[in-house]
Amino acid sequence: MAGRTDWAQGFIAVDWGTTNRRAWAVEPGGEIRELLEDGMGVLKVPPGGYTGEIDRLRALWPGHRLLLAGMVGSNRGWVEAPYAAAPAGLDELIAALKRPTEDTVIVPGVSWLDGRDANVMRGEEVQLLGAVAAGLAPADGVICHPGTHAKWVRMEGGAIGPFRSVMTGELFSMLSRHGILQDRLAGEVSINDDFRAGAEHGLTNCDLTAELFSVRARFLLGVREDSASFISGLLIGADVRIGLDRFGGDNVALIGRSDLTALYAEALRLAGRDSTQLDGERAFLLGARAVAERLG
Amino acid sequence: MAGRTDWAQGFIAVDWGTTNRRAWAVEPGGEIRELLEDGMGVLKVPPGGYTGEIDRLRALWPGHRLLLAGMVGSNRGWVEAPYAAAPAGLDELIAALKRPTEDTVIVPGVSWLDGRDANVMRGEEVQLLGAVAAGLAPADGVICHPGTHAKWVRMEGGAIGPFRSVMTGELFSMLSRHGILQDRLAGEVSINDDFRAGAEHGLTNCDLTAELFSVRARFLLGVREDSASFISGLLIGADVRIGLDRFGGDNVALIGRSDLTALYAEALRLAGRDSTQLDGERAFLLGARAVAERLG
Repeated sequence: MAGRTDWAQGFIAVDWGTTNRRAWAVEPGGEIRELLEDGMGVLKVPPGGYTGEIDRLRALWPGHRLLLAGMVGSNRGWVEAPYAAAPAGLDELIAALKRPTEDTVIVPGVSWLDGRDANVMRGEEVQLLGAVAAGLAPADGVICHPGTHAKWVRMEGGAIGPFRSVMTGELFSMLSRHGILQDRLAGEVSINDDFRAGAEHGLTNCDLTAELFSVRARFLLGVREDSASFISGLLIGADVRIGLDRFGGDNVALIGRSDLTALYAEALRLAGRDSTQLDGERAFLLGARAVAERLG
Repeated sequence: MAGRTDWAQGFIAVDWGTTNRRAWAVEPGGEIRELLEDGMGVLKVPPGGYTGEIDRLRALWPGHRLLLAGMVGSNRGWVEAPYAAAPAGLDELIAALKRPTEDTVIVPGVSWLDGRDANVMRGEEVQLLGAVAAGLAPADGVICHPGTHAKWVRMEGGAIGPFRSVMTGELFSMLSRHGILQDRLAGEVSINDDFRAGAEHGLTNCDLTAELFSVRARFLLGVREDSASFISGLLIGADVRIGLDRFGGDNVALIGRSDLTALYAEALRLAGRDSTQLDGERAFLLGARAVAERLG
């Protein structure tokens, strides 16, 4: 096919999630150019719409291959890329790649299943393995990836081992939009004394569904606090407790949106743990490159 | 005023909540007749609409007084009846009654405040004190009232003492309508092995926000379960753990909707505790009568 290049000549990396999509040109020398960021998440693509959307991505940098990751490989996406079972490193991801066309690959998600202990991720695996490949996260250690469904992962020999998801982001978003706490969650979240009070509570108590109501009661009874920061701290404190209870870790590598990793770093500090922070976009591009390098 | 009777000649009792309203005629001999059940909760009453709504209630049994309880006395209701501070028994409720007109009373809610430990109830207080007045719940002991915001209450000398609310019902409803678990919550909840597995998990673990995601992952990975019953059990198990951790109780008096008290009774059984169940409507009417008797 005239003009088609191989992976070594650069490629288009696409992080295609449920609600958003981002695409970058990864140049042969490693230079990165952002090509696209839009709201065309997989839930927005109409039936039969993927052919046009893929053509649109190809047109962003004509003649280059496409590496797609995230929910685009789910059963609601373009072509389903079944989960690679953990433990899964780059080799396992590549063995489970889907190739819907000659010049596109879809990176699979990763699953964990041990009896009733079940978990899945899609998209984070590229970031985690990219960070480890670049030496920015430990090949053996604990990584936390905050987000809609925060992930706590034990890395084992450079591979994704057992992991757990916590619905922190989804619950915060739901409580912000519905029910009796939505008024209390209108403000911005800050790392302040109320955030820390919430985080301390979540780290040391086991009563999340009750403490959430207390926020409303304190407001009604005139006890003033920054409820949004308190509730964020409460949910993140509980999240960190759950992660540490399962995986331990004196030093946790945080990968994700920098506003979120900063909140988790503070909760970890309150729990007496160290952490490092790595931007999720950077980790994604490192991972996309690590995959592409192995494709030749 | 011609034709106006006093409380001893019977009255109209109204349980007026956020989304629903129910009214009964309480005859002098104690006979009860349901007069109305509709969806005209306080959030549905338009500005300026209470005069007409109160007239409509009066017309259900002309010439009789009105006893109103629930959210109608909140800051979103007709006339605000500020909370009576716990400990609060019938005398404290009556001392804090609001009398918007000569022939109507609004029963106040009850608050608990000890530093940051804050809580409120509106409507449940009538049920709790009615049950105790009738000897159907202990004057000294633990009562649980399941619902949108489940209440755990320590009764002390016949009065409502310290109490806590758990957002079990609100969270279950929210998860049923929004987010990744809504498909899993389409079915009916039953007391079956999956309900019990969820309840056992909630009673003995401290990882609610993670275990909720596992339900989704099990489904995606083909591990079959009755997710609605499991999640109901999980939330109720956590609720019961929170209540027992705070208030103890070898025998808990459950008051509320019979489908909910049955679920809580099963979770309490799994926790090794006894319980009794009392229908919330019956408790409300006992409480309304106990208040009216003291009004002469």
